[in-house]
Amino acid sequence: MDKLFIIKIGGQVLDEKKATQDFIRDFTSIQATRILVHGGGKIATRIGEKLGIESKFTEGRRITDEATRDLVAMVYGGLVNRGLVAQLQSGGCNAIGIAGADGNIFRARRRPVRDIDFGWVGDITAEDVNVAFLQQVLASGVTPVFAPLTAAGGEILNTNADTIASVLSVALASHYHVRLVYCFEKRGVLRNIEQEESVITHLDEKEYLSLRKKKRLADGILPKLENAFDAIHRGVHEVVIGQARDLLKNVGEQTAGTLITK
Amino acid sequence: MDKLFIIKIGGQVLDEKKATQDFIRDFTSIQATRILVHGGGKIATRIGEKLGIESKFTEGRRITDEATRDLVAMVYGGLVNRGLVAQLQSGGCNAIGIAGADGNIFRARRRPVRDIDFGWVGDITAEDVNVAFLQQVLASGVTPVFAPLTAAGGEILNTNADTIASVLSVALASHYHVRLVYCFEKRGVLRNIEQEESVITHLDEKEYLSLRKKKRLADGILPKLENAFDAIHRGVHEVVIGQARDLLKNVGEQTAGTLITK
Repeated sequence: MDKLFIIKIGGQVLDEKKATQDFIRDFTSIQATRILVHGGGKIATRIGEKLGIESKFTEGRRITDEATRDLVAMVYGGLVNRGLVAQLQSGGCNAIGIAGADGNIFRARRRPVRDIDFGWVGDITAEDVNVAFLQQVLASGVTPVFAPLTAAGGEILNTNADTIASVLSVALASHYHVRLVYCFEKRGVLRNIEQEESVITHLDEKEYLSLRKKKRLADGILPKLENAFDAIHRGVHEVVIGQARDLLKNVGEQTAGTLITK
Repeated sequence: MDKLFIIKIGGQVLDEKKATQDFIRDFTSIQATRILVHGGGKIATRIGEKLGIESKFTEGRRITDEATRDLVAMVYGGLVNRGLVAQLQSGGCNAIGIAGADGNIFRARRRPVRDIDFGWVGDITAEDVNVAFLQQVLASGVTPVFAPLTAAGGEILNTNADTIASVLSVALASHYHVRLVYCFEKRGVLRNIEQEESVITHLDEKEYLSLRKKKRLADGILPKLENAFDAIHRGVHEVVIGQARDLLKNVGEQTAGTLITK
């Protein structure tokens, strides 16, 4: 089984020019099949402020009214995605941006309103992935770069980037030996939120549930860990969480960050 | 030789919801291989105003400073491109957005400064097209949707949509029988700019040069005609100019608009 790295990056890599350049250099040097998934929330918030669009969050997730939907289509699907692909291409990695309805990649659904109306938000599961199309892209040696957008009924939908990375990992886990790599601002999952050095090297589900019960996990890490354990339960071989600059130096080994297993 | 329709749309189709919906319906009903190229200048100008970015033009072409470059990456590459692909997909046309450096589609160059510094503007010729990649996409039954963006040196470059349509037509003219269709706000090239009904049904180069010399052609149509004649000179079989709603009804025939030949 060939190795496949599915790497998700967010603000810590995208918000600063030098960090982005370092990431592009490390990513292009990976000698294996890989997929990139990016966020861009802070950039969207910043540009939204200039446009007079207020950002609203519930449990760390953006509420997406129509103006916000158009904002994220612009920022995630245009500015960030097009920029990353241009930089990867310039670094020698033949990449292609995938967002929304491109190649019919996801059969997404707008999230139904229950307690909260999330607005123009899309949900997907691993069964919704057009695996044949993705395999065709990967087989031709082109690296897909996913923006956190899906589509349904002709409308672009805002979709959590961690979820996209997780769903892709699960969908491809029967075809590749998948390592899902979540890059974020901390060195890994921390035993003590106050101490940057308290990285949990290996986190299994028992300890995760115990830490969550004790409310020892930061809000930002919770959806990430839910996605990680969901992926592991559904066949993904490894999930690693930590800082891009540590994790990508030797992406085939676990020399940094938190390794998630069942 | 298989037929290929390369269809370029601009503001007249993109600025109004009903016009876009009609276009999507007509485009998806075309029973032949096709490529869509879109503009979006008026939408960029409108969103630019909200962001405090002033639009500057010289000879009908946008001067692209860094803020404007990011604006067009967002509007053309994000809002418009992602939206069109979502609508096409919903209409049953399996489409994929292509912009900037996607799939290494163009070997573009930033325009050198001569009399005017156009800023972050990219130039391409037919020799710069990655025909193998494009043929692979077309052969898999997926319709490419081009935003007017290219890339060089890791930077997104603003590139005229008419030029992209023309360059693609030339690059593919030895593989397909190409009809290049320029949709714009008039019913065709007008003999008298004041009279909407004075459509020139057939314009050859001799008459074009004569009309241009007499300054009888509107500023907006000049780059379009330059691109059209350049395409014809370089092997493109037919160019048709007119309104989307007329041209797409029966895109295989010339029942409306201006037919351009050598």
